[in-house]
Amino acid sequence: MEQQQFKKIGIFKCGNIGTSPNLELLLDELADRKDIKVRTVTTGSKMGLEDVEEALPKIFEFNPDVFVVISPNTALPGPAKARDQFSKSHRPGIVISDYPGKKARAEIESQGLGYIIITGDPLIGARKEFLDPIEMAIFNSNINKILAITGVYRIVQEEIDKVISSLETGQTPVLPKLVVDMNAIRDNSTFTNPYAKAKAMAAYGMAEKIAEVDTQACFMEKESEKYIPLVACAHEIAQASARLAEEAREIEKYNDTVLRKPHSKEGRQKVKTRLMLSPTFPEEYYEKRGIQ
Amino acid sequence: MEQQQFKKIGIFKCGNIGTSPNLELLLDELADRKDIKVRTVTTGSKMGLEDVEEALPKIFEFNPDVFVVISPNTALPGPAKARDQFSKSHRPGIVISDYPGKKARAEIESQGLGYIIITGDPLIGARKEFLDPIEMAIFNSNINKILAITGVYRIVQEEIDKVISSLETGQTPVLPKLVVDMNAIRDNSTFTNPYAKAKAMAAYGMAEKIAEVDTQACFMEKESEKYIPLVACAHEIAQASARLAEEAREIEKYNDTVLRKPHSKEGRQKVKTRLMLSPTFPEEYYEKRGIQ
Amino acid sequence: MEQQQFKKIGIFKCGNIGTSPNLELLLDELADRKDIKVRTVTTGSKMGLEDVEEALPKIFEFNPDVFVVISPNTALPGPAKARDQFSKSHRPGIVISDYPGKKARAEIESQGLGYIIITGDPLIGARKEFLDPIEMAIFNSNINKILAITGVYRIVQEEIDKVISSLETGQTPVLPKLVVDMNAIRDNSTFTNPYAKAKAMAAYGMAEKIAEVDTQACFMEKESEKYIPLVACAHEIAQASARLAEEAREIEKYNDTVLRKPHSKEGRQKVKTRLMLSPTFPEEYYEKRGIQ
Amino acid sequence: MEQQQFKKIGIFKCGNIGTSPNLELLLDELADRKDIKVRTVTTGSKMGLEDVEEALPKIFEFNPDVFVVISPNTALPGPAKARDQFSKSHRPGIVISDYPGKKARAEIESQGLGYIIITGDPLIGARKEFLDPIEMAIFNSNINKILAITGVYRIVQEEIDKVISSLETGQTPVLPKLVVDMNAIRDNSTFTNPYAKAKAMAAYGMAEKIAEVDTQACFMEKESEKYIPLVACAHEIAQASARLAEEAREIEKYNDTVLRKPHSKEGRQKVKTRLMLSPTFPEEYYEKRGIQ
Amino acid sequence: MEQQQFKKIGIFKCGNIGTSPNLELLLDELADRKDIKVRTVTTGSKMGLEDVEEALPKIFEFNPDVFVVISPNTALPGPAKARDQFSKSHRPGIVISDYPGKKARAEIESQGLGYIIITGDPLIGARKEFLDPIEMAIFNSNINKILAITGVYRIVQEEIDKVISSLETGQTPVLPKLVVDMNAIRDNSTFTNPYAKAKAMAAYGMAEKIAEVDTQACFMEKESEKYIPLVACAHEIAQASARLAEEAREIEKYNDTVLRKPHSKEGRQKVKTRLMLSPTFPEEYYEKRGIQ
Amino acid sequence: MEQQQFKKIGIFKCGNIGTSPNLELLLDELADRKDIKVRTVTTGSKMGLEDVEEALPKIFEFNPDVFVVISPNTALPGPAKARDQFSKSHRPGIVISDYPGKKARAEIESQGLGYIIITGDPLIGARKEFLDPIEMAIFNSNINKILAITGVYRIVQEEIDKVISSLETGQTPVLPKLVVDMNAIRDNSTFTNPYAKAKAMAAYGMAEKIAEVDTQACFMEKESEKYIPLVACAHEIAQASARLAEEAREIEKYNDTVLRKPHSKEGRQKVKTRLMLSPTFPEEYYEKRGIQ
Repeated sequence: MEQQQFKKIGIFKCGNIGTSPNLELLLDELADRKDIKVRTVTTGSKMGLEDVEEALPKIFEFNPDVFVVISPNTALPGPAKARDQFSKSHRPGIVISDYPGKKARAEIESQGLGYIIITGDPLIGARKEFLDPIEMAIFNSNINKILAITGVYRIVQEEIDKVISSLETGQTPVLPKLVVDMNAIRDNSTFTNPYAKAKAMAAYGMAEKIAEVDTQACFMEKESEKYIPLVACAHEIAQASARLAEEAREIEKYNDTVLRKPHSKEGRQKVKTRLMLSPTFPEEYYEKRGIQ
Repeated sequence: MEQQQFKKIGIFKCGNIGTSPNLELLLDELADRKDIKVRTVTTGSKMGLEDVEEALPKIFEFNPDVFVVISPNTALPGPAKARDQFSKSHRPGIVISDYPGKKARAEIESQGLGYIIITGDPLIGARKEFLDPIEMAIFNSNINKILAITGVYRIVQEEIDKVISSLETGQTPVLPKLVVDMNAIRDNSTFTNPYAKAKAMAAYGMAEKIAEVDTQACFMEKESEKYIPLVACAHEIAQASARLAEEAREIEKYNDTVLRKPHSKEGRQKVKTRLMLSPTFPEEYYEKRGIQ
Repeated sequence: MEQQQFKKIGIFKCGNIGTSPNLELLLDELADRKDIKVRTVTTGSKMGLEDVEEALPKIFEFNPDVFVVISPNTALPGPAKARDQFSKSHRPGIVISDYPGKKARAEIESQGLGYIIITGDPLIGARKEFLDPIEMAIFNSNINKILAITGVYRIVQEEIDKVISSLETGQTPVLPKLVVDMNAIRDNSTFTNPYAKAKAMAAYGMAEKIAEVDTQACFMEKESEKYIPLVACAHEIAQASARLAEEAREIEKYNDTVLRKPHSKEGRQKVKTRLMLSPTFPEEYYEKRGIQ
Repeated sequence: MEQQQFKKIGIFKCGNIGTSPNLELLLDELADRKDIKVRTVTTGSKMGLEDVEEALPKIFEFNPDVFVVISPNTALPGPAKARDQFSKSHRPGIVISDYPGKKARAEIESQGLGYIIITGDPLIGARKEFLDPIEMAIFNSNINKILAITGVYRIVQEEIDKVISSLETGQTPVLPKLVVDMNAIRDNSTFTNPYAKAKAMAAYGMAEKIAEVDTQACFMEKESEKYIPLVACAHEIAQASARLAEEAREIEKYNDTVLRKPHSKEGRQKVKTRLMLSPTFPEEYYEKRGIQ
Repeated sequence: MEQQQFKKIGIFKCGNIGTSPNLELLLDELADRKDIKVRTVTTGSKMGLEDVEEALPKIFEFNPDVFVVISPNTALPGPAKARDQFSKSHRPGIVISDYPGKKARAEIESQGLGYIIITGDPLIGARKEFLDPIEMAIFNSNINKILAITGVYRIVQEEIDKVISSLETGQTPVLPKLVVDMNAIRDNSTFTNPYAKAKAMAAYGMAEKIAEVDTQACFMEKESEKYIPLVACAHEIAQASARLAEEAREIEKYNDTVLRKPHSKEGRQKVKTRLMLSPTFPEEYYEKRGIQ
Repeated sequence: MEQQQFKKIGIFKCGNIGTSPNLELLLDELADRKDIKVRTVTTGSKMGLEDVEEALPKIFEFNPDVFVVISPNTALPGPAKARDQFSKSHRPGIVISDYPGKKARAEIESQGLGYIIITGDPLIGARKEFLDPIEMAIFNSNINKILAITGVYRIVQEEIDKVISSLETGQTPVLPKLVVDMNAIRDNSTFTNPYAKAKAMAAYGMAEKIAEVDTQACFMEKESEKYIPLVACAHEIAQASARLAEEAREIEKYNDTVLRKPHSKEGRQKVKTRLMLSPTFPEEYYEKRGIQ
């Protein structure tokens, strides 16, 4: 009997951050990768311990080769439970969380898991006078655009892909230990135009500010006169930031230099810039440009 | 032993449409509803029969009171399998799909399921020269904004909420049978300003056009010289449409008439418009305005 | 007595489409062509048979070498009358019309006339609650910009120029048989940047959607509650489309690659791209670029 | 034999200004007025004496009740010829021209004709290195939008309508003697919001500046190094001005206060503001508002 | 001999912050106040001790009734010197500085001076690869707009006016002790529309972020590869923030609710909102609105 | 005793024009020039003779090597007084003023002073119903951006720098005799892209129009019904112009061709374009490009 020809990625989502809704889609955007299967189990917007305890077993039942857990503040009991279980599985596991999750880094390392902490994946303005399903979805839309364009999604996707690739080639995967802050955005940028890069960084910096404002609004202010303007303010920053990120990408479009890295069916990323050309494997792409 | 105090919603996602990523979040945007629990199982961007067959049982293991399946073209074997199983469960089930799913309406009805067909939730420009994880996420971001602002997300969420509410009060749920086209957008609009409504409708009409262009690009054109400009064109319409939808909402902000309907902890929606005021239950809200 | 040194173009306009108001101006934008004279007779916004019958003879009295008739839906009695008379003149004649005119193609061919059907020259939102002279002029302004930038006007002008040129050189003119749809826009694009082209195509696709929406609004809906939002929506798409077309051209300006093709005094088109350089005749222009 | 039930308006266009392309359409935007017929004869972009002499007789052959001649600088021989002939017809005649035509006012009055001089209908950047058919059409599109939104088109249309109405009721028409400058825009504005009005005025003032710049570029500068930047500059002002005019109208849309004055079938203008309401005759409209 | 009829304000500027360039102009925008004279002495962009020591005496020679010193980080030796001398003059003195000046608050209080610390008046991107005179001026333009629209300039101007007013009426002036942070912006806002207020707050929060980024770029990073993107990023935030502030004001213009408080000739501020009305003294203004 | 190692620039400002607030900052944008010291004395927004007479002596007490006086209309008594005193000092002096100052050119030359007349530095809308401190600051912000980007500030700064440089090298300074009109903007432009240049020129032409409108509003109209719309209109042009100037600079950013000329510590300007590179002295910069 033949050996399994693909790796299975098990994603567990509890609660929601900007990186959550698109996460599994990033790994197989054309839905034609032969080398992986993705299974996700979610507890919706809730992330309580009870929710996690009920839902978590299902992800193990899929018997994944790689685990990913994504949640707000991974130090809270719910997400912590998932990390604990992942750790015990002795399979490669990656924790993705937002700024407040930063404090759990040492613990995550001791659990043998990798982590990607995204400082610009901000808290939403969760006040009942302001947040309804529509406002929530609009905010997510803005944050998704920011995270996509500034490079966060690519970092996340490539880190997971690296683990998969290691497993496929029989190597021990190197798990990520990354805090994706503005410096990381700067240092991992794939923009060709330096002002496009600066605008993307600006968008990301603004997203960090959203987190700051919403934290004050949600956890420190008591009176609606005080916190409503703050949550509304935070979501205005999100909108302005999304526009700025979009502008960054437009620059690359104006110069026909958008870097695209679609997955091949075998799961490797191809590379291309000029729109009308076909993507090629990186070795060929960089060879043409005289880069080693 | 006490009776279960909440209803459980089981969502099965196979493949992805614009309504998919935020779906469960719409039901509990503040993560504090006491009356429901949401569990989602997903096969990622793939929707093959094999994927569905492996993953689908998990959603049943959660023993939900209501089922939702969301996918592109629900007539395809994968999603059809999910509908078939839902139908056999004899619990209320809702099918959410895009324009190509329209042809399955009679079958869905005969299965005893409800449906919401969203004509403005368009096919993505899935051509390898164009679509990489970043382009995919940006497209989703734009479509999410369009669907949120034009009212599609509210229709979807309220239809699911109605079913939940019926179960809570012991009534037989009335399952939706809706094709959400431009007329539906017009007739369900909650915009106060008529030009805001017109802009939202325009955004939705443009989203329908995306579907048309991407269908030609993905299924009819063979040469990359022909289809690359088409997929790029379709995503430009998406961007322009998202901006127009945003503009529609801005008008309501300019007039301080944004309608917000946050969920209360008990699961009922409250209503409000003026930003600095608190939401109230609808009966109180409409009474104040002299509407019966 | 010397032979006539110029050709005369006789244009008959009945009713109005987006291509009408600028039509004769396209042929002689600098008003210094020595090789042609243009005479136009118009029945204003009306296109009834009686109007056409009264006005049409005047265009024959100018004794033109080439006839052009432009109108909405050329299958209607008024424009059909003009085609009939043109056909009998046994001089080259071109019919320009919008999408509904497409059904008359076979008839036009049998009449020995050429045609240019422009699918993205949409019906206006002609409802009395919405359309007044100002709204009409704004709509035309938007459509004119779309048709100019996306390349429709250039196709129309070059087709007429080709006929003139054939007559000047004593050749039998080849009359156009064109449906200018999105594929034609794609295949005739003179944009250098592929995203500019994609945005122009998007603008054109949106213009096609306008036609669809306005047709529903003007001919199918009976209640003002239903059709007012639709005509307003259609005109919003027009505005968004004009902006997008403008953006397409801006990209070329940003790269100093706007293609310009001014008429020389002798009536041939020169060519240029870089703004500060002078236009040259095409053979010189393309020779420099190594294109045969 | 029954008396003629309608008035006939004969429009003669020689050369082109921004008010020309839409002129006849303004009088019958819905193409359903029973009380008028419009006939136009045009010499295209040329306005030489010879062109006018050949084409002008045709407009008399239509036997119009009212004459309108529109052209750049009405003091030039071509348009002057048309005025001369109109004057001799002893029927009401109106001259529409741009700023340079201002100097002919005394002569026009002595000819017994009316005039509308539009200072913000600017000269185009007619330099062969810059102006091709597409650039021309884009410029016209921008100017058309400016003239429509700032109120120029309404002034023109209502002055012609007044003459028609006088003839219909057997009164002696009062011919316009108007210089439409920024003060006229201010004093005839129908904007409700004062900033909308200010933006419209700004757009108009910018259009006046275009005329100034293009006059320098077309008639004073000899070297292309000098005049190309000027014509390009003038067209950039046109684009910025059109955007500003659009913004002015958007304000009224945001407040649902766009004034619309569609023609009834009998030729009188109705009035309305709120989009979803029907237009009414002015006496009813203003009565409701308590205005006499 | 008559007593002096006016108060003299002596402003000393060393170095530059966003509030500096317009400071004296804010006190007498119409240049017609009879009750004050303003004299300013400046050391340009430098703020070294030596510069201050040379220039400072001149401001005392003007013999002002009120002193104002404005500079970056007032804790530095140059500005500290000015504070020291002001303190010794025993006349009312106000210190205006940016975020780093916050640490000098206790010292300022002990000097008997007032202070206004503006957290959103950010450090410029002072790196030689980036900042030239033009970039500097553009940055200042953006920051000036932000500070004007968000309300900072009004706070500053009214605090100085209050001191002047106290002196005029023989009262002991109450010197300001203010940290103008986002909460202050919120609590002192004069916007009528709550989203305008939220946008203004967002603009201000973004300005605070600029300070953070530029501080890293100017003082912490050593390599140009690292700091150039950061200063460019900071200035992009400034541009986006200025646009957002402008948008906030536009909302008020759209609603004709812009609050204006021009100085009367006697130096009191009048108040108005509707553009076409005249300003009145506050007691009359608020009485009309039924506010005590 | 060692000779003074730096030159001192004494700037006297009375009243305010758009070039005033940033003037001294332009000379030393990084605050690290060793070769100059700048001292400014200002009379605020007032420019009466009495104000000038009191404040002017202070600037002489600084004993500057170069004098600059900047004011509106330098022909008025206050600024004329400053010119008169500068002239008597027999040191190099430069007069900077706006359009109305043009008439004093002969007098300035006879005084042995240089001048820079800036036709696009427009009068503000100084009407009490409109101008309050905030409106003033916003207007200045817009004008500052226009003057910075279009090249005016660079002309001013380089002219002053040339005088300083002459003094440093012991040469007789050549004082500027410049009217900075649209032609000067065109001929001194440092934009690489010709459309960026055209947009900058357009912005400047619009600024000239502001002057025209505000002059009518402030000096000719008597009724608030007439002048309020005019001043509001003028400030709208300012906003549109600032946006257009910004767009011009964005083009250069999109192409990474922004010319930057930071001062070195020794006071010479370095040059650079590509953002990530370091500035170099001009001889090296132009040598690389093969320009002599």
